[in-house]
Amino acid sequence: MEQENKLKVFCGNGNRPLAQKIANVFGKDLGKCKIVRFSDGEIYINIEESVRDNDVYIIQSTNGNVNEYYMELMIMIDAMKRASAKTINVVLPYYGYSRQDRKSLPHEPITAKLIANMITIAGATRVLTLDLHTVQVQGFFDIPLDNLFTVPLFANHLIEQGMHGDNYVVVAPKNSGIERARELAEYLDTTLAIVDQDGEQGYVIGDVTNKTCIIIDDMLNTGTTISSASTLLMEANATEVFVCASHALLSDHAKQLLEQSPITEIFVTDSCEVDKDRQPNQLTYISCAPLIGEAMKRIYEQESMSPLFGLEGMKCISPEN
Amino acid sequence: MEQENKLKVFCGNGNRPLAQKIANVFGKDLGKCKIVRFSDGEIYINIEESVRDNDVYIIQSTNGNVNEYYMELMIMIDAMKRASAKTINVVLPYYGYSRQDRKSLPHEPITAKLIANMITIAGATRVLTLDLHTVQVQGFFDIPLDNLFTVPLFANHLIEQGMHGDNYVVVAPKNSGIERARELAEYLDTTLAIVDQDGEQGYVIGDVTNKTCIIIDDMLNTGTTISSASTLLMEANATEVFVCASHALLSDHAKQLLEQSPITEIFVTDSCEVDKDRQPNQLTYISCAPLIGEAMKRIYEQESMSPLFGLEGMKCISPEN
Amino acid sequence: MEQENKLKVFCGNGNRPLAQKIANVFGKDLGKCKIVRFSDGEIYINIEESVRDNDVYIIQSTNGNVNEYYMELMIMIDAMKRASAKTINVVLPYYGYSRQDRKSLPHEPITAKLIANMITIAGATRVLTLDLHTVQVQGFFDIPLDNLFTVPLFANHLIEQGMHGDNYVVVAPKNSGIERARELAEYLDTTLAIVDQDGEQGYVIGDVTNKTCIIIDDMLNTGTTISSASTLLMEANATEVFVCASHALLSDHAKQLLEQSPITEIFVTDSCEVDKDRQPNQLTYISCAPLIGEAMKRIYEQESMSPLFGLEGMKCISPEN
Amino acid sequence: MEQENKLKVFCGNGNRPLAQKIANVFGKDLGKCKIVRFSDGEIYINIEESVRDNDVYIIQSTNGNVNEYYMELMIMIDAMKRASAKTINVVLPYYGYSRQDRKSLPHEPITAKLIANMITIAGATRVLTLDLHTVQVQGFFDIPLDNLFTVPLFANHLIEQGMHGDNYVVVAPKNSGIERARELAEYLDTTLAIVDQDGEQGYVIGDVTNKTCIIIDDMLNTGTTISSASTLLMEANATEVFVCASHALLSDHAKQLLEQSPITEIFVTDSCEVDKDRQPNQLTYISCAPLIGEAMKRIYEQESMSPLFGLEGMKCISPEN
Amino acid sequence: MEQENKLKVFCGNGNRPLAQKIANVFGKDLGKCKIVRFSDGEIYINIEESVRDNDVYIIQSTNGNVNEYYMELMIMIDAMKRASAKTINVVLPYYGYSRQDRKSLPHEPITAKLIANMITIAGATRVLTLDLHTVQVQGFFDIPLDNLFTVPLFANHLIEQGMHGDNYVVVAPKNSGIERARELAEYLDTTLAIVDQDGEQGYVIGDVTNKTCIIIDDMLNTGTTISSASTLLMEANATEVFVCASHALLSDHAKQLLEQSPITEIFVTDSCEVDKDRQPNQLTYISCAPLIGEAMKRIYEQESMSPLFGLEGMKCISPEN
Amino acid sequence: MEQENKLKVFCGNGNRPLAQKIANVFGKDLGKCKIVRFSDGEIYINIEESVRDNDVYIIQSTNGNVNEYYMELMIMIDAMKRASAKTINVVLPYYGYSRQDRKSLPHEPITAKLIANMITIAGATRVLTLDLHTVQVQGFFDIPLDNLFTVPLFANHLIEQGMHGDNYVVVAPKNSGIERARELAEYLDTTLAIVDQDGEQGYVIGDVTNKTCIIIDDMLNTGTTISSASTLLMEANATEVFVCASHALLSDHAKQLLEQSPITEIFVTDSCEVDKDRQPNQLTYISCAPLIGEAMKRIYEQESMSPLFGLEGMKCISPEN
Repeated sequence: MEQENKLKVFCGNGNRPLAQKIANVFGKDLGKCKIVRFSDGEIYINIEESVRDNDVYIIQSTNGNVNEYYMELMIMIDAMKRASAKTINVVLPYYGYSRQDRKSLPHEPITAKLIANMITIAGATRVLTLDLHTVQVQGFFDIPLDNLFTVPLFANHLIEQGMHGDNYVVVAPKNSGIERARELAEYLDTTLAIVDQDGEQGYVIGDVTNKTCIIIDDMLNTGTTISSASTLLMEANATEVFVCASHALLSDHAKQLLEQSPITEIFVTDSCEVDKDRQPNQLTYISCAPLIGEAMKRIYEQESMSPLFGLEGMKCISPEN
Repeated sequence: MEQENKLKVFCGNGNRPLAQKIANVFGKDLGKCKIVRFSDGEIYINIEESVRDNDVYIIQSTNGNVNEYYMELMIMIDAMKRASAKTINVVLPYYGYSRQDRKSLPHEPITAKLIANMITIAGATRVLTLDLHTVQVQGFFDIPLDNLFTVPLFANHLIEQGMHGDNYVVVAPKNSGIERARELAEYLDTTLAIVDQDGEQGYVIGDVTNKTCIIIDDMLNTGTTISSASTLLMEANATEVFVCASHALLSDHAKQLLEQSPITEIFVTDSCEVDKDRQPNQLTYISCAPLIGEAMKRIYEQESMSPLFGLEGMKCISPEN
Repeated sequence: MEQENKLKVFCGNGNRPLAQKIANVFGKDLGKCKIVRFSDGEIYINIEESVRDNDVYIIQSTNGNVNEYYMELMIMIDAMKRASAKTINVVLPYYGYSRQDRKSLPHEPITAKLIANMITIAGATRVLTLDLHTVQVQGFFDIPLDNLFTVPLFANHLIEQGMHGDNYVVVAPKNSGIERARELAEYLDTTLAIVDQDGEQGYVIGDVTNKTCIIIDDMLNTGTTISSASTLLMEANATEVFVCASHALLSDHAKQLLEQSPITEIFVTDSCEVDKDRQPNQLTYISCAPLIGEAMKRIYEQESMSPLFGLEGMKCISPEN
Repeated sequence: MEQENKLKVFCGNGNRPLAQKIANVFGKDLGKCKIVRFSDGEIYINIEESVRDNDVYIIQSTNGNVNEYYMELMIMIDAMKRASAKTINVVLPYYGYSRQDRKSLPHEPITAKLIANMITIAGATRVLTLDLHTVQVQGFFDIPLDNLFTVPLFANHLIEQGMHGDNYVVVAPKNSGIERARELAEYLDTTLAIVDQDGEQGYVIGDVTNKTCIIIDDMLNTGTTISSASTLLMEANATEVFVCASHALLSDHAKQLLEQSPITEIFVTDSCEVDKDRQPNQLTYISCAPLIGEAMKRIYEQESMSPLFGLEGMKCISPEN
Repeated sequence: MEQENKLKVFCGNGNRPLAQKIANVFGKDLGKCKIVRFSDGEIYINIEESVRDNDVYIIQSTNGNVNEYYMELMIMIDAMKRASAKTINVVLPYYGYSRQDRKSLPHEPITAKLIANMITIAGATRVLTLDLHTVQVQGFFDIPLDNLFTVPLFANHLIEQGMHGDNYVVVAPKNSGIERARELAEYLDTTLAIVDQDGEQGYVIGDVTNKTCIIIDDMLNTGTTISSASTLLMEANATEVFVCASHALLSDHAKQLLEQSPITEIFVTDSCEVDKDRQPNQLTYISCAPLIGEAMKRIYEQESMSPLFGLEGMKCISPEN
Repeated sequence: MEQENKLKVFCGNGNRPLAQKIANVFGKDLGKCKIVRFSDGEIYINIEESVRDNDVYIIQSTNGNVNEYYMELMIMIDAMKRASAKTINVVLPYYGYSRQDRKSLPHEPITAKLIANMITIAGATRVLTLDLHTVQVQGFFDIPLDNLFTVPLFANHLIEQGMHGDNYVVVAPKNSGIERARELAEYLDTTLAIVDQDGEQGYVIGDVTNKTCIIIDDMLNTGTTISSASTLLMEANATEVFVCASHALLSDHAKQLLEQSPITEIFVTDSCEVDKDRQPNQLTYISCAPLIGEAMKRIYEQESMSPLFGLEGMKCISPEN
């Protein structure tokens, strides 16, 4: 079909395996785009096929070398714009700097907004994200943004494993992200608990005695919060602790901390690419590629995204390739 | 002093008594500005003194007739811009639509961002707010925005009343706003609890037995959440329930609900003007005028705002007039 | 036809009966869009069908609760933009604040321009208006704007009634709007007169003796100008007085004033919705729905609008439903 | 005084004698600025003194070689911006293209708005105009614009000549600009008449028998409208005809037409520079330099402009140098 | 074919014969557009056919009356935008002011950037140029710009004439534009020389003894540089001198200077229209119409432009009509 | 002096030693600004002193970790803007990506323009650069930009060393940058030569026999061009070869290549910070700090920059600290 040829999917270096999986949802190869780093550190990009009047998707995760990857992304957007792409759709499975979304001290930047402005000024016409740290970041953009959720993805997996009902309790590992925990609790039909911790100390609010805890959070970065939460939960007489986290950054000593913790299994998406030797041995990846790919298809074919925001929508997503 | 004459404070109809109190902090009268509503509903504004090259402050609360008050504000900004004001500083003690800060359904607007864009396009050069519903709304603006906090204001008051320490527990009345509760708990040196409720049902997470509860939230609108939280707390063996809320909208049947609830006293700021007959009898106003006025002075005199963000800063604010 | 499905017509609360009539021109139902007013006065909007990649038309008249209706409009535009509408076409049968189109005093706003900026920043891509108070308001926009005229509509009606020729004189009711009067005079082949009045006094410039006068103006607001003009005309020996007015706001005591005046019949369009009990008994509505609907069809089908700007164009418009 | 040195007045080639007169109001020389036309027609501009952090005024009339003068102006603004002027104030004694302020046919440009956008994008921060063709052009700008009026200037002159009261009638020479005529009539305490003409034919509306007519219009271009109006007035038994016109373009055969007409004297401002041999022998110049210079002083010294908008303000303007 | 009807080609007065040739590439007539100059110098434009939702191309060369032609262009763009053209593609065979692309003195404008901003703000969506003076001017735009090269055009012609190889040397006529010379030298397989001259003096760098020189430059304006270069080359024992120049402005005494010089033949494109009596007798035009027309076709049909940037691309361009 | 306190100089990590030297020109310490890199790679910035209403200068060189340093810069600008700095002046001693200033292939980005847009959108109000690769990059900005030159700096140094006159020849090391070479040749009163090379081959255009060559270029990156040029010059019977280069990136094997070349001495500025072990042993640094510092002082004190653009200006710059 002729229209089909007007869609092209490109990616930066942020997470090529994920981008490849997403492209597979369309049964397409990734577009040809040369990304070179010169000896002086500058990035050089040349798109090696015509994108004139095409709907272009650029997939870029921005964990790890976040600054390099963002600069790559901006330069790719600029190149696409000047090469006369019809629309430029930026897909950010992981939105680096999304936690810097407010001034908590008077002289701080709001870097998440700066990123939004940079993406817009570079020439993007639409953005697709996965489980933003705070949903208000949507409002940082005046171009359309669709934010996909991972809670249904995890809920679907946990239910398939039989992990729901009275013997379970969903836990927010610190005094934020309670909405996320509550949504999962509803899917799993469980109660809710919170670990209130700040720095060295902490305690459990709510009852976890003789229950299997499912901690849920958006980011798994250094692992400190989640591993200390798991210890506090075990001390509060929990039976076992599982973890769901959307974005597995696993920086610093996360592997060591998590392997030493009482956590049984950690479910994460593959939004962030991480070296094998930084992955703790309890880690299980649930790919977000079918979800993101399905969303991109719906954008391209101008279908409603609504079904993708609930549990039943998990069934309509393409099986992973 | 000559420079002093370059500051002018104006207000819309949103909350004139508060604006007058704030002007008093500067020892000034409110600027003369005619605001008329024509018989066909249109607002007509004429600034009745020169603002050429002045630093202009426009104070407007936007509860109640929120749409009227926002249109008034936009028209005033436009008039100030065309009358060649040097800077136009918008002071929003209550930021209407601040809860519509994200798309929770796929086809919703983000009205809080729309308001931000409208304020900016009309010509404002800076914004001052009080306890925004979510701090991320700061990032909706690319002009400087200072957001003042009410927690230190309440903490200062409660400490003066001896309301702190082991016999108290600070409570978040639903599964959001826990940061606010935690901050107050730290000031008051208490533990924390949460009421998890959604619609008809709810339960207390954490221990409140034989404790005096201090519920804290940013908005007191219909009173449903807070009154049901107070009932649940009493059922969970709390001794007594107090409430702190930044913005007392008190819409609908709030007065009735709150008076029927077991709440002893409700501390709110005067950010919103509300008719006497909609105020429940437990209500105590703690004026935010000294705090806002002090912040405006610091902006005008180019001093740092940092001291105003903590408990000790409460001492440097002008006594209320 | 597939393309047909890409057009969706929505409306706000400004004038639903007119919007329904316009939708009928397309043989379509109005799009589903929930507009709620919360107890605290805030408007909540949710578009209840997908508009992704659709050409969306939003019809909103902005008389009466002008500020509410404009805020509704802005929020709807924002929602459409974020829901990825392809184009957002704003149809304003009545453009509230269009008379505030200049600074007549040095410290006034230019609210009609503010509205234009707000509509643009919210995300509209095109505007369609009906008989703007001053045509220069077109230049307030940098997005395309088509302004339809009512004079051919009235001329067509009057000619059908035999109201033209030597026994008639077209009258401008005050020292503005003479172009409008002159255009009607040319269609009806009559002479021209002007009532010069400002406040209490006035007099007729030109000869109306033994003639039937047809006063024409764009707005019929409080009725003061037109009723005093009709009295002055009768005193100047006119035989009878008719009135044509594009926008029947009929605010304040208009009904009473007009019914006490010597006016025989008042022709107005239905651009403004007005309660039955505020309509004077001489009122006759000539619907602008066929004209606006035809213009929208031509925009959608990318046909020239030119035929709609003259008398002969009145024949090509759809008969009213 | 140090601050005084921060004001610099420049001009283009549009009307150097007027610019020199205006500079005299400040007792200053015009700033040094080289304007060269290369052999290929390109304009080259070099500002020959530092304007860093200065309040710069650029005076440019744009009649005659209107396109050349506008390009000169845009290039000067760009140069001032890049040379780091603090503010760039554009003074347009005559705003070329101001009549192209609306689409009267569907495929026309709105060139007056294009000019406004170009002035803004080039870097101007404020605009000062004299008697805009339609006051709505103010709203074409979002930077502050002050529009001075010439009616008080003419009224002051006529009153000084004893030309007011019952023996006079003020006449609008065609069916527009009646507001201007009415304002003069009020100052002179006279009645009002209109000449309705379009192309070859025309007639007088209102009574001019045995009266001295004072035609007022903003532009005196080809002289066709005004000379035919004067003939029609004399045919309607007027005693004598005078003319006031703000902008004397005097293009085409204006001199010949006007000298052949029954007009006694023509009062115009010097907003437009016109060759001696194109000036009809009835022409009398009333300089607008004191008015414009006084307005610029008030802008620079941040004083209110309001006094300049009425008759009494004519006394506070500097006597012409 | 239906889509074909959506393309319309218009032109200003800058170079109508070239525009007509380009239109012929499409087998189309130039769109109807009235361009009038009023007696007061103002340009009036009316597009005399519907462009609603069309892809519009406006061809305008801007040599000669450069300011008039740029104003014409801006006004045409504005008219197209307001008449709802889908895309507005500006084709500038000669980009006037392109040499004013930097501040060489501290208080100069960057007029080439000003022009870029004006074209963008007027509403253009894409630009096509021919051999820009400096390629960096591409970056003055944020809308897509394609810059075509003339070196392959000249190389193709010279090779067809057998003018290449060891007996030839390509010469840059002053210390800039060496890239252009080098590119031609590579196509023709020759060495390179430079004439270093500034004002009165000059000398040849490199060996031209007993060689036929081909001077190449982008602009042939007054002819001073090129005629003095040709003299210096002959003094340095060159056999014969030919010239290639993209843009033949031929202003001032160019004809005389060039005819008196030892230059044998001058190859130029027809990007600039010049009166017959200003053309030196050695002049040979090589039309750029097939190249520009082919580029426009590729833009319209969304094909890659890459083939047009090399020598082989010269074969795919349409034979001139 | 009070005004003095309103100037604050900050720097990123790009080249701290240079920033410190520049700050010394003002006799000030660098402003306190915490720049942290989190374990996940994100940059966190907190300005540790008030900048409210200050003129802020941010010095950042962007060689080496160019992407990191640009992101640092953007985040610092954002922080300064939100902390209400009055002006934000970005000082880029080395402008990374400045060579990517055009599309040389059809699908390339123009990264130098992207950087300009990003700096502007982040909130900078002015830019100061040193010897831009192409001066047209000035036009990529619409905020004021001053570009300082290094040629006078090198000329001053060479003249002090007696390196000028007939025994010397200035050489452009490839077929670009001839303007720079020519300017130096004029200061030193020498002739000019060019090395034409592209890839493996090359040859000298012009006479260098028995002369001391001074190669000048803006960038010294991998050293390939300059070392092969030096070899070609020696083969063409030059006596000795010196090099001047503004920006010493010295990436890759530059040290090795240059040390193996016949170059006697290499003069560079300290615009780029480079590890000791990457500096070839012929390297001599001439600091640009006095020049940049003096320019900043002139900007701050609103003095003309003109004197800094010539040789005599080298005497007015502060001696280096």
